[in-house]
Amino acid sequence: MHIEQASHEQLQSELAALEMRYAQLADQQLALDLTRGKPGSEQLDLSVQLDGILQGDYFDAHGTDVRNYGGIDGLPEARALFGSLLDCSPAETLVGGNSSLSLMHLVLEVAMRCGLRGPDSAWQRYEQNRFICPVPGYDRHFAVCEHLGIEMVPVPILATGPDMAAVESLVAADETIRGIWCVPRFSNPTGCVYNDDTVERLARLTERAAGDFLVMWDNAYAVHALSDSAPRLASISACARNVGTMDSVVQFGSTSKVTFAGAGVAFLATSEANLNVLRSQLSFQTIGPDKVNQLRHVRLLRDRATLAAHMGRHAALIKPRFDAVLNALEAELSGCGMGRWTTPEGGYFIAFDTLPGLATEVVRLAAAIGVKLTPAGATFPYGKDPQDSNIRLAPTYPTLADVQAAAEAFVVCVKLASIRQRLA
Amino acid sequence: MHIEQASHEQLQSELAALEMRYAQLADQQLALDLTRGKPGSEQLDLSVQLDGILQGDYFDAHGTDVRNYGGIDGLPEARALFGSLLDCSPAETLVGGNSSLSLMHLVLEVAMRCGLRGPDSAWQRYEQNRFICPVPGYDRHFAVCEHLGIEMVPVPILATGPDMAAVESLVAADETIRGIWCVPRFSNPTGCVYNDDTVERLARLTERAAGDFLVMWDNAYAVHALSDSAPRLASISACARNVGTMDSVVQFGSTSKVTFAGAGVAFLATSEANLNVLRSQLSFQTIGPDKVNQLRHVRLLRDRATLAAHMGRHAALIKPRFDAVLNALEAELSGCGMGRWTTPEGGYFIAFDTLPGLATEVVRLAAAIGVKLTPAGATFPYGKDPQDSNIRLAPTYPTLADVQAAAEAFVVCVKLASIRQRLA
Repeated sequence: MHIEQASHEQLQSELAALEMRYAQLADQQLALDLTRGKPGSEQLDLSVQLDGILQGDYFDAHGTDVRNYGGIDGLPEARALFGSLLDCSPAETLVGGNSSLSLMHLVLEVAMRCGLRGPDSAWQRYEQNRFICPVPGYDRHFAVCEHLGIEMVPVPILATGPDMAAVESLVAADETIRGIWCVPRFSNPTGCVYNDDTVERLARLTERAAGDFLVMWDNAYAVHALSDSAPRLASISACARNVGTMDSVVQFGSTSKVTFAGAGVAFLATSEANLNVLRSQLSFQTIGPDKVNQLRHVRLLRDRATLAAHMGRHAALIKPRFDAVLNALEAELSGCGMGRWTTPEGGYFIAFDTLPGLATEVVRLAAAIGVKLTPAGATFPYGKDPQDSNIRLAPTYPTLADVQAAAEAFVVCVKLASIRQRLA
Repeated sequence: MHIEQASHEQLQSELAALEMRYAQLADQQLALDLTRGKPGSEQLDLSVQLDGILQGDYFDAHGTDVRNYGGIDGLPEARALFGSLLDCSPAETLVGGNSSLSLMHLVLEVAMRCGLRGPDSAWQRYEQNRFICPVPGYDRHFAVCEHLGIEMVPVPILATGPDMAAVESLVAADETIRGIWCVPRFSNPTGCVYNDDTVERLARLTERAAGDFLVMWDNAYAVHALSDSAPRLASISACARNVGTMDSVVQFGSTSKVTFAGAGVAFLATSEANLNVLRSQLSFQTIGPDKVNQLRHVRLLRDRATLAAHMGRHAALIKPRFDAVLNALEAELSGCGMGRWTTPEGGYFIAFDTLPGLATEVVRLAAAIGVKLTPAGATFPYGKDPQDSNIRLAPTYPTLADVQAAAEAFVVCVKLASIRQRLA
């Protein structure tokens, strides 16, 4: 039944059936949660050997005792391994603590208050600073901008990445634009992978921009494919080197969804010039990162092949959960005209778009029967989805049975809201 | 021989003997280093069981899986244990990552840019902001002030702590003063322990200060006594609670010199009101600290008694190194009028004051024969010791034999510089 083709009677009969299903779900007193992009406990168990892996050997390949102070850039072998994920050299890479968000905050704060090219380049000298935010996107990126007083300009994200025509026009026309947020592989929340043309054009953006411009390349899901056939991401480092824009590209990653979400290591790669500035700023805040944990990670993840095998074990746990949601959506909503969704090949999220104006209502309906969803609007700057349509589904954390139950409840809520709206 | 009572001939003969000793030391091609307040490797070995201590049990006392995201305040049991060191409740305590410096930076940055009592309280709205820095003091404290544009006002540190009469006059007379740095127990570098009257008066400073005022209480050596008879420190929490100034006292500590210098846990304690503000600011930068490492620390250090026993093992390693320096100073410089020094009962440093104008020269003489000392001036704001007199000696990191050799070389340099100056 397509909602726009159904008769009034058909819709009323469907509504009655849905209300019965909804009431039955309510009776089950569910307590389900699809809100958080967190690994499940089986995933965490994949790295359980991290604690103890050093076996008393606290010395890195250079003979440095990692227990002591020092080394603000992180361990050389950690810089080599994690830099390689971003196609950058150890000299272009800094490995920090457990949070890539804190590295992103550092970069924007330094750009804002101190300037990456000397005090005259600090964004705070401008009256207005704006950042392009592909939407839907990641709420913590938006929060950093808001916190630092950077105004956000949304641009739609397509299957190929941000709408580059819109991005390029904005950058050319608006000299207050200072940068763009990107989650280039398995984007949060749509799961799209930026195509080669998009990566190339993003690396060239500086050429159009006035003054300092930053591509904030949060490659949080760089190695987080659900299968070997997932699309590859072009190297923005290679593109930026070709066109001489490495100073404008700052890449981030972490092992939060490789090892332990709260106790991994985060890393950053950019030009050596940028790294010099960031290092000197960082030195006011810390003597250095936790190198012991970095060494643990190097011992566990070793090299690209070992890491890939490790990520394959994550995929084996995650893919059934993605499938549970996608199967429920396909089975109940395909061809119904009651919403669209993405079918990611990696990452942590599925993005669902309800009919315009229904996201808030769907989230409310789900909450009322014990299914917690990410608040409507959370994937947009200032929490405002102009269509009130996007809902981020995060299937990794609950058990498979819970994901199935939550997905079934979700589709009932979507259909209920859609048909009620149609009949209103 | 007292330098002021010796005859010209005595001084000349002593000088000749010293120059011979200095030349002999030069021949030995020493490579010694008394610059860094770092634990030695035997000290690090005391906590070698940290890696592996969890034995696969990653759950805290509340059943939380510490591997996952969340908990911006840190683990409840870590807050309880480390809060108790600062005489604060878990609710007044935040446990962070591996760096107390980053917590100190956070507090001053928030006070400066956001305000601890709302935007109108941000220090940056004032034309001038100044901080009292007891001298000699810790260079990284000074660096944070300089970085944030806070002007530093030195006040002498006495055996009882900062010269409180001077501090109180400054605070009463100068409304640009926003706070004071304190290392209250085994101060860096003099090793003094603030006496009860000083602690009480520091807790009352807010009553005299205009607007927002912070006592930055870096209790880095809270449990780092060389013996059981070392002086206790009064609880500034108790004093501040009595007089209602908890909002003006922010205490810091870490296990950097308890477990691993670069991979410990840092903590902060203050009023719950302050903590609310700091927590909300921190949430823009991180999802939470490394709780796995916090749990390791709780399992290792357990309670105050276990911690005290652990610190006793540190003292057994450190005390001979302090004694080696103090014995050399006593044997060669006692009653000579060529300098004064402190005899700390804990902490990581000995402060030596040369005759006025000689610190730079002593450091130079030592460097020339392979003995690295902390640069003269480093213990003063802006690196400027007006007397060019203070030298910070850090005996913990080298082997005992190296400390002995370095101390012997040091006294030769002090005597050489002093007698040359006298004869000049």
